[in-house]
Amino acid sequence: MKIAIINGPNLNLLGKRESSIYGVQTFEDYFDLLQKTYSTIHFNVFQSNIEGELINYIQQSDAVFDGIILNAAAYTHTSVGLGDAIRAIDTSVVEVHISNTLAREDFRHKSYITPHAKGLIVGFGIDVYRLAVESFLLESHSP
Amino acid sequence: MKIAIINGPNLNLLGKRESSIYGVQTFEDYFDLLQKTYSTIHFNVFQSNIEGELINYIQQSDAVFDGIILNAAAYTHTSVGLGDAIRAIDTSVVEVHISNTLAREDFRHKSYITPHAKGLIVGFGIDVYRLAVESFLLESHSP
Amino acid sequence: MKIAIINGPNLNLLGKRESSIYGVQTFEDYFDLLQKTYSTIHFNVFQSNIEGELINYIQQSDAVFDGIILNAAAYTHTSVGLGDAIRAIDTSVVEVHISNTLAREDFRHKSYITPHAKGLIVGFGIDVYRLAVESFLLESHSP
Amino acid sequence: MKIAIINGPNLNLLGKRESSIYGVQTFEDYFDLLQKTYSTIHFNVFQSNIEGELINYIQQSDAVFDGIILNAAAYTHTSVGLGDAIRAIDTSVVEVHISNTLAREDFRHKSYITPHAKGLIVGFGIDVYRLAVESFLLESHSP
Amino acid sequence: MKIAIINGPNLNLLGKRESSIYGVQTFEDYFDLLQKTYSTIHFNVFQSNIEGELINYIQQSDAVFDGIILNAAAYTHTSVGLGDAIRAIDTSVVEVHISNTLAREDFRHKSYITPHAKGLIVGFGIDVYRLAVESFLLESHSP
Amino acid sequence: MKIAIINGPNLNLLGKRESSIYGVQTFEDYFDLLQKTYSTIHFNVFQSNIEGELINYIQQSDAVFDGIILNAAAYTHTSVGLGDAIRAIDTSVVEVHISNTLAREDFRHKSYITPHAKGLIVGFGIDVYRLAVESFLLESHSP
Amino acid sequence: MKIAIINGPNLNLLGKRESSIYGVQTFEDYFDLLQKTYSTIHFNVFQSNIEGELINYIQQSDAVFDGIILNAAAYTHTSVGLGDAIRAIDTSVVEVHISNTLAREDFRHKSYITPHAKGLIVGFGIDVYRLAVESFLLESHSP
Amino acid sequence: MKIAIINGPNLNLLGKRESSIYGVQTFEDYFDLLQKTYSTIHFNVFQSNIEGELINYIQQSDAVFDGIILNAAAYTHTSVGLGDAIRAIDTSVVEVHISNTLAREDFRHKSYITPHAKGLIVGFGIDVYRLAVESFLLESHSP
Amino acid sequence: MKIAIINGPNLNLLGKRESSIYGVQTFEDYFDLLQKTYSTIHFNVFQSNIEGELINYIQQSDAVFDGIILNAAAYTHTSVGLGDAIRAIDTSVVEVHISNTLAREDFRHKSYITPHAKGLIVGFGIDVYRLAVESFLLESHSP
Amino acid sequence: MKIAIINGPNLNLLGKRESSIYGVQTFEDYFDLLQKTYSTIHFNVFQSNIEGELINYIQQSDAVFDGIILNAAAYTHTSVGLGDAIRAIDTSVVEVHISNTLAREDFRHKSYITPHAKGLIVGFGIDVYRLAVESFLLESHSP
Amino acid sequence: MKIAIINGPNLNLLGKRESSIYGVQTFEDYFDLLQKTYSTIHFNVFQSNIEGELINYIQQSDAVFDGIILNAAAYTHTSVGLGDAIRAIDTSVVEVHISNTLAREDFRHKSYITPHAKGLIVGFGIDVYRLAVESFLLESHSP
Amino acid sequence: MKIAIINGPNLNLLGKRESSIYGVQTFEDYFDLLQKTYSTIHFNVFQSNIEGELINYIQQSDAVFDGIILNAAAYTHTSVGLGDAIRAIDTSVVEVHISNTLAREDFRHKSYITPHAKGLIVGFGIDVYRLAVESFLLESHSP
Repeated sequence: MKIAIINGPNLNLLGKRESSIYGVQTFEDYFDLLQKTYSTIHFNVFQSNIEGELINYIQQSDAVFDGIILNAAAYTHTSVGLGDAIRAIDTSVVEVHISNTLAREDFRHKSYITPHAKGLIVGFGIDVYRLAVESFLLESHSP
Repeated sequence: MKIAIINGPNLNLLGKRESSIYGVQTFEDYFDLLQKTYSTIHFNVFQSNIEGELINYIQQSDAVFDGIILNAAAYTHTSVGLGDAIRAIDTSVVEVHISNTLAREDFRHKSYITPHAKGLIVGFGIDVYRLAVESFLLESHSP
Repeated sequence: MKIAIINGPNLNLLGKRESSIYGVQTFEDYFDLLQKTYSTIHFNVFQSNIEGELINYIQQSDAVFDGIILNAAAYTHTSVGLGDAIRAIDTSVVEVHISNTLAREDFRHKSYITPHAKGLIVGFGIDVYRLAVESFLLESHSP
Repeated sequence: MKIAIINGPNLNLLGKRESSIYGVQTFEDYFDLLQKTYSTIHFNVFQSNIEGELINYIQQSDAVFDGIILNAAAYTHTSVGLGDAIRAIDTSVVEVHISNTLAREDFRHKSYITPHAKGLIVGFGIDVYRLAVESFLLESHSP
Repeated sequence: MKIAIINGPNLNLLGKRESSIYGVQTFEDYFDLLQKTYSTIHFNVFQSNIEGELINYIQQSDAVFDGIILNAAAYTHTSVGLGDAIRAIDTSVVEVHISNTLAREDFRHKSYITPHAKGLIVGFGIDVYRLAVESFLLESHSP
Repeated sequence: MKIAIINGPNLNLLGKRESSIYGVQTFEDYFDLLQKTYSTIHFNVFQSNIEGELINYIQQSDAVFDGIILNAAAYTHTSVGLGDAIRAIDTSVVEVHISNTLAREDFRHKSYITPHAKGLIVGFGIDVYRLAVESFLLESHSP
Repeated sequence: MKIAIINGPNLNLLGKRESSIYGVQTFEDYFDLLQKTYSTIHFNVFQSNIEGELINYIQQSDAVFDGIILNAAAYTHTSVGLGDAIRAIDTSVVEVHISNTLAREDFRHKSYITPHAKGLIVGFGIDVYRLAVESFLLESHSP
Repeated sequence: MKIAIINGPNLNLLGKRESSIYGVQTFEDYFDLLQKTYSTIHFNVFQSNIEGELINYIQQSDAVFDGIILNAAAYTHTSVGLGDAIRAIDTSVVEVHISNTLAREDFRHKSYITPHAKGLIVGFGIDVYRLAVESFLLESHSP
Repeated sequence: MKIAIINGPNLNLLGKRESSIYGVQTFEDYFDLLQKTYSTIHFNVFQSNIEGELINYIQQSDAVFDGIILNAAAYTHTSVGLGDAIRAIDTSVVEVHISNTLAREDFRHKSYITPHAKGLIVGFGIDVYRLAVESFLLESHSP
Repeated sequence: MKIAIINGPNLNLLGKRESSIYGVQTFEDYFDLLQKTYSTIHFNVFQSNIEGELINYIQQSDAVFDGIILNAAAYTHTSVGLGDAIRAIDTSVVEVHISNTLAREDFRHKSYITPHAKGLIVGFGIDVYRLAVESFLLESHSP
Repeated sequence: MKIAIINGPNLNLLGKRESSIYGVQTFEDYFDLLQKTYSTIHFNVFQSNIEGELINYIQQSDAVFDGIILNAAAYTHTSVGLGDAIRAIDTSVVEVHISNTLAREDFRHKSYITPHAKGLIVGFGIDVYRLAVESFLLESHSP
Repeated sequence: MKIAIINGPNLNLLGKRESSIYGVQTFEDYFDLLQKTYSTIHFNVFQSNIEGELINYIQQSDAVFDGIILNAAAYTHTSVGLGDAIRAIDTSVVEVHISNTLAREDFRHKSYITPHAKGLIVGFGIDVYRLAVESFLLESHSP
């Protein structure tokens, strides 16, 4: 099984800034644990602050991966283009957010991703990535 | 570990109606499988079509369970009282929805539950309950 | 032919209060006349002030009646759950309102029932129930 | 008893276009049946695509008819002038719509007619005209 | 003099939860003091988490009590039905809120009760009940 | 001096209907007095219930009259076309309304006429026509 | 006949500033002409930039004058208090604006004065005062 | 105990105008009774129609009085400055309104005072002042 | 090939008024050139200021023409009826506007035509008609 | 004549995805035909998923090309920056959309491009590019 | 060089109240330092809580000063009259706010001053006054 | 002292385009003067049309510079990501805009930057950069 993890703007700062909101663990440290837990899964991790590079990567991921875990961060709320890219590909996309975005500012309540996503996991801290992996395993195990 | 599963209005019809949206499995059948998969967890299941009975049950669940999985269905979008009840108790509540509510009618985009929930899982079909169980296990396993 | 008449909150006060809006006839008196006029129809009448009990009754009415006449009163404007219940069943529902709700306060202009109803009859006084019965007869007479 | 039936824009196409929404019966055919069913009632039928001609006709109908059945179609949602005309006359107006306008586009939810109408009948197909006739008969029979 | 005190959803938790907002006194303890202070007044206290039971109780209170003190809590902001019930009865209703609801979330600024209430008392902590009692005494003393 | 008076929909009912709002005088009677008071002015009066005929008349009035007094009635609030017509011609248009439209329903507060009008006179009863005539006289008398 | 003319904020600059909008004539010069034209009328002129002084003056004008001409300028759009004052007195108030306020910024379209005014005259330049005087004369001359 | 009573615009007309809304008692007469009832309390009464004078008085009242009863009348709905003044001082302010402002026009539903007030009392007629006095007494009696 | 060109209100003034917006060419002159350029196409041109006559003409054009070029002008933004007419017929309609309506007033941004049109051409001056003709030719030439 | 064709995000997928909306032809194939049809025109084609690269290219195109055909796709609805770029250059930009964006989701109705574009062509399928070329030819032929 | 500093409502409390927002320095102390730093500039300082007095002072400052620094405080957000006064005079006005008003309540985001101001400086604490002085020096030094 | 100046989309055109809005000076020329005026300050200048590159640069500037001057241009109004980046770093950011953005189109009134900025300077032309530098100097000089 091959899964792409795509992180949007400012997520490269995870664990380095605003620990009261996002925790103290860097994504790199977390990912090492995630890879060990799911040792038979092939993961690709991609991060960019540039909206169009995220669109490029999503397009190129199609048919290459069995699933995509997307944390589009700030672009979640403003990018019609990311939504269009997800609608255009066949690979399932699971949308995740580390913090409870729906309990924060109003402009974070709107998502252009959700209408085209297979599912949404919000607010469990960094373990939203692990729950997303579980959601793909459930699917592949279903009769 | 003890977990309460609370289902709101019309979820007693699950698997019996509108299978194109909610699937063909009844909640009872699904729950049997869930209990077998997590045989060491003690589950309580409660369903009601009456908003106030759901509030009663949430109040009574506090300190009795290690976690609550809440699918408030239609009351998600209109019940200030359910939100107040969740805010008032100490036990963590994970909000789940079987269908992708954010891709449906506008009035289903508003949730009075989410701002007070520990996390939100939306749109993976009936397995949102299983992913919610996993989210409690992650927590209890963390050092 | 079997028809259920379901009345929502405060309709038990019909004919006893606010006669300038709702008239002076109680629903019981009116129903006696209705039953006499349509002596071959079997009617069931149910009234509750509790939203969830109305949902319960609608669910239980499915396949038992040939039609449902629903005056959801105040819940018309706030209950996503009643709308969901109607959408989930097969029996046709005709929505009625005694007063001209669309000429009253703004919050009475919104209905969660109408999009799922077979038809809507508003503003003829208590005879909206009779016109609703007529609408079922038209249907059963059509070739 | 004398009743005017007034049809607004595009209703001359009834039964000829968009049968999935409006059915396959022309208004002329339907009216023949209606007249036969209520052979003692004198009906006048008027159709126009021009807003002002409908206003003219409503003004001229006052005191000439015992009741008016108005299907203002598209002008329902935009014509302040039709609403003013109905408010200005003494004859009762019953508003009808063949399709469930409240389950269609948002701009069809607004009506300038309803606040001044005696009653509203929506969504039973072309038989809304017959139910409107019934509503006038109920009235004339009341003690 | 007979006064009904009606408390809505989650108010049974008063003094047990969220003391930073609502204080540490239970309603039962507070009520004992209130009854002693006004020993000649006959009080009835009713609490329910179920909207329809509150409507039932309001209907039954009419003509039985000289006044009603209503803290509808969360239902204040969503219940058209409670507002309809108050409008339908003759007994005066005084609306109270323990916290300053108008300084909290937006959805708590809307009240379906106030337009039909005799008066509104907000934000003095649990003594809003006592001030409401005073308001009825003032009235009964006026010449 | 030549002045056109243009009256919109339902103004042919003036003095015959809704006298509590519009008074008991017909426009014909009022106009006779107006003509006598300003015997040296040549007036043309035009009334239509049809929006497009009003547009036609405004177009044809250009350069023929020294001024236009327009009471567009209900079309005031909905007709982009009338506004466009006034903007397109050179002759000054004074907008009048008999009742205080800004103290009535919300939809009467919007005017497509005013931004293109020379001036606006509202709420003095039928004498708004006389004040409009005065406004043209002031202009022609100014040095 | 006694008439008060009340001018609001910045109108003391009339004729000295922004002549492209308001013209080059000072109010003092204009008033001299007005007084000469209507030599039998007793006028009082009051100007203030302070909202409360305008309220004071309106209160004191009641029963002293036969009519009030009010150009509330900027306070037209924000002063609930001026509206309340006008509603509270018996003397008729005619609202005037020199420029076409309804063709200017959105915030100038709202008036707290109009719903309580006898009439409204807008956009004829400084002669709105003269037309307002005429409106009082019409009234005093009517049989 | 020293209490300031501050009355906003048009309240000097109390008992002299609009008795159907505000009653027939002048504030002076009412205050005489109030002073007699609470003979040990030192009251200061201040009324002004000028927004800034009210701000001045509130600033000067700080630390001089044990409490302020503020009826800001029309400025309640428009004055950010009054709200800022209350927030800036330490003395508690109780907001009162004689009529049920929340059952009147929409623009009276907004209050810039409430978020900074200790409490709000609305709609009991002129006795809102007395209930406000009671609220300060309750406070001074608490252990 | 047969094409109908339908022009809405005030377009008969083209080239005669407001040349800064619409240019100096009359539609008649432009049409002569157009006919010469496309000599093998049979054109019908219809203009009316009356909304209902435009609806009439659209209905009558169905099946008679291979395509319709519609410039509904002011009715574009207010006519639900024109939209309904276009939806009801089979012949393709191309919507055109001479000026860039989307860069003008807000109320010109809304179109009831576009959702039912085959295509939209805006802002090239009077040559929008020619581009619309080209769009029909492209279609007829496709394999 | 030199024309730049600029395509925004996801348009590199044209003909490969969502053929029910966008058709089955790739842009490359279509462009070959376009180039052959207009063999004397020099075209440059640029596509990017990155908003800023599109802005870069627009800036660099100025004075280099005789016209720009821009299909900004998803960025049409969110990019103030693209609109600013177009406003800043002298070369004319024609905005095109393959599908009828105004008949799709609400967020596609807003365009930051149109107010600064020379013209807009929407909804004729991929031939919107050809019609845009025609619009430049018309211009270059005008006297 | 002569500069007027105009401070609006509650700014006389600066340094005395709410130090967490506005700091601990009084304006008088701050101004002493400012005057020393710019010893060749002649400053006038004016503060009032009364909207109309601020308008008076702005009118009187025209042509007397080389520039005005205006901190309108609460009136920034509600006073059309202050905006009108600034627009009416020739002297440049620089708008300042001590706190970051755009990061506070929504009603502080609206300013009637900014559209008519030469510039805006927000959020540097009390040094916004010094930066405003610098902006006038820049100007006077430009060639 | 080290200061980063970050310029967003289209600012590379400064002085080359739209001189009526932005002036005729290029940023390069202006910067030469700025550097000379503040010869002891080390400046870094960065411009990009790509949103994500601006985010990259802001992240990399943290702890490297003593302050950041940010003119995000068009991205000011749409970029949640830039706001998130500023919130995530420790270095102070001063937001500047050359033109008075609050006096232009509505969509330029919203800023995602301001709530996280230390201060805001708007509308003094290109000297907003110099005033921002001054604001950092003031700070470094404070005791």
